[in-house]
Amino acid sequence: MFQKYSGAILNEIQTVLRKVNTKEVDDFIDRIISAKKIVTCGAGRMGMMARAFAMRLSHLNMQAFNLGDSNVPRIGKGDLLIVCSGSGETKTIKELAFIAKEHEAQIALLTNRRESSIGKISDAIVTLAASSKVCPHEKPSSIQPMTTLNEQSCLIFLDTLVLLLMNKLKQLPEHLKNRHSILE
Amino acid sequence: MFQKYSGAILNEIQTVLRKVNTKEVDDFIDRIISAKKIVTCGAGRMGMMARAFAMRLSHLNMQAFNLGDSNVPRIGKGDLLIVCSGSGETKTIKELAFIAKEHEAQIALLTNRRESSIGKISDAIVTLAASSKVCPHEKPSSIQPMTTLNEQSCLIFLDTLVLLLMNKLKQLPEHLKNRHSILE
Amino acid sequence: MFQKYSGAILNEIQTVLRKVNTKEVDDFIDRIISAKKIVTCGAGRMGMMARAFAMRLSHLNMQAFNLGDSNVPRIGKGDLLIVCSGSGETKTIKELAFIAKEHEAQIALLTNRRESSIGKISDAIVTLAASSKVCPHEKPSSIQPMTTLNEQSCLIFLDTLVLLLMNKLKQLPEHLKNRHSILE
Amino acid sequence: MFQKYSGAILNEIQTVLRKVNTKEVDDFIDRIISAKKIVTCGAGRMGMMARAFAMRLSHLNMQAFNLGDSNVPRIGKGDLLIVCSGSGETKTIKELAFIAKEHEAQIALLTNRRESSIGKISDAIVTLAASSKVCPHEKPSSIQPMTTLNEQSCLIFLDTLVLLLMNKLKQLPEHLKNRHSILE
Repeated sequence: MFQKYSGAILNEIQTVLRKVNTKEVDDFIDRIISAKKIVTCGAGRMGMMARAFAMRLSHLNMQAFNLGDSNVPRIGKGDLLIVCSGSGETKTIKELAFIAKEHEAQIALLTNRRESSIGKISDAIVTLAASSKVCPHEKPSSIQPMTTLNEQSCLIFLDTLVLLLMNKLKQLPEHLKNRHSILE
Repeated sequence: MFQKYSGAILNEIQTVLRKVNTKEVDDFIDRIISAKKIVTCGAGRMGMMARAFAMRLSHLNMQAFNLGDSNVPRIGKGDLLIVCSGSGETKTIKELAFIAKEHEAQIALLTNRRESSIGKISDAIVTLAASSKVCPHEKPSSIQPMTTLNEQSCLIFLDTLVLLLMNKLKQLPEHLKNRHSILE
Repeated sequence: MFQKYSGAILNEIQTVLRKVNTKEVDDFIDRIISAKKIVTCGAGRMGMMARAFAMRLSHLNMQAFNLGDSNVPRIGKGDLLIVCSGSGETKTIKELAFIAKEHEAQIALLTNRRESSIGKISDAIVTLAASSKVCPHEKPSSIQPMTTLNEQSCLIFLDTLVLLLMNKLKQLPEHLKNRHSILE
Repeated sequence: MFQKYSGAILNEIQTVLRKVNTKEVDDFIDRIISAKKIVTCGAGRMGMMARAFAMRLSHLNMQAFNLGDSNVPRIGKGDLLIVCSGSGETKTIKELAFIAKEHEAQIALLTNRRESSIGKISDAIVTLAASSKVCPHEKPSSIQPMTTLNEQSCLIFLDTLVLLLMNKLKQLPEHLKNRHSILE
């Protein structure tokens, strides 16, 4: 059963990631590279994946923060809010996106729904074809509870961005490692 | 490049998960089901994956906590500490495992190294074949920086456990959804 | 200078707490005692004080959670959301209060402004006379930046509640200590 | 009862803070001002107070982090670890202090016990006369459970440092406010 289930999960993620539009990815990456400060956010488990990405952005020598960090700075023009929200409608996250927009920060969204409230105000969007809370029966269907597939796809998507960013920024694994916290 | 990299990452994870010993998995699951209270922990991004699992354990109606939650209770006999540590040597996490052991809690470890310090005091171990900080050149090698493959394998492994636990405990996706926080 | 400043801070807090209406306190405490599950929340440093209170509520043997804990459950009828918001207008927190209300949870608010958006939907309110972001020039004025006085008053207020709750619930310090996490 | 208890708590804090050695404070502040990067830490509620201080250090335009932030950098020579530990013996925190020391970071400790394990390797120490877990019966005794008085004294102490730092660094409240996160 373990092998059957873990194989099925990896297939689900693969199905989602194969549908990713690589032009959307290029735009996403350009926004990240040109941002002065970056804040990542998401609700629940999506937020944890956004957090894992903020850590890697720091290792890539960027001014990166995750919502909830003690040191999140004021953001505005030239800064980027990276939002992970399958539905694009999560209420608190939507509020934050509106606030960021009002202060002229750019918004890069990872979502299942381009046409969502957050989608409408985003500067860059990558669409994941996973099912979300708003459209639970959308294809591809998943054997997993709630938005699990979304969260997994989000992590692997963002970790793929890390490899692309390392390439673009000429960063080797040891460069990242040398910026990793020793306090653990 | 996106498709090449994301495909390579999924292959790496698959290679790790295919080597998982399913007897170890069964033992791990039995400890989870019979535990009164469960605390999950890990350092850095491993800790975030452990945190994502604690959330799902709560959705499965278990008394589950992640290190750092405001409400972590005193644990002892009958309770379980789930440790995610590739090296099995992360200093603060090792301290916590020793403290838990001293108080007669059981320890379930997800690691690359059975023979590590934490491995030696663990009651159940699942071995992941990913490279770790201590043995960075162990097979399978990874194109990803630091212990990224470990963290990803950890998430997918734990999410596979969620499916196995749902089966064993006769929990449907809607049962889990009904326990999900509305505050987001 | 240290003695002058620390003395001034303690005086500021004292001025705020002396104005607290003890009938409001009694109502606040009754809601806490009769709640099935309690979630505390607040933004920024106010959220950290709310978090410190959730930990003590757990030590008092209550089902308590802080927003951001991995195990926050679905709340509804019979449950209590404790909101710490000086202005009563913090956007994300206001969203959460509205969601909680919609699901028939009760709301207990610690604020400077009874007449605020969150105040209007709250079941119990304790008013602190500290200055807030919305009314920065309200009395009492403070030598401290931003809403620092609010946050400090919030901590001392909530820790006073802990003593009152210990009394009411016949809980001794050793009872609380015995529920404290060993994992540190 | 509310007024009696809150008054007693403020008296307890005052007793602790009046005994603070202002030469120790000056040294603490000098280390903060000359540090390149600062990481604050503490266990449980002490950690939350350390977190509240990290936020204010960021508002003061310092490179500040709290343990657990997603972006904690590698620290070493020229950096400062601020440790809040009443006992000076909290196991995980002690590990972190040793690691920091090994990497030549400086350590500034807020504690009840200069002669503790962490105290012995610290470069600057401020002693608080509050009771701790190790010496629960030390003077001044407190009506509050566990190390509550310590945590409160820690918050007010650190907020007093904020005022002293504002003075030294010519920072006005509006300067701090302009660096405060808008994402809330």
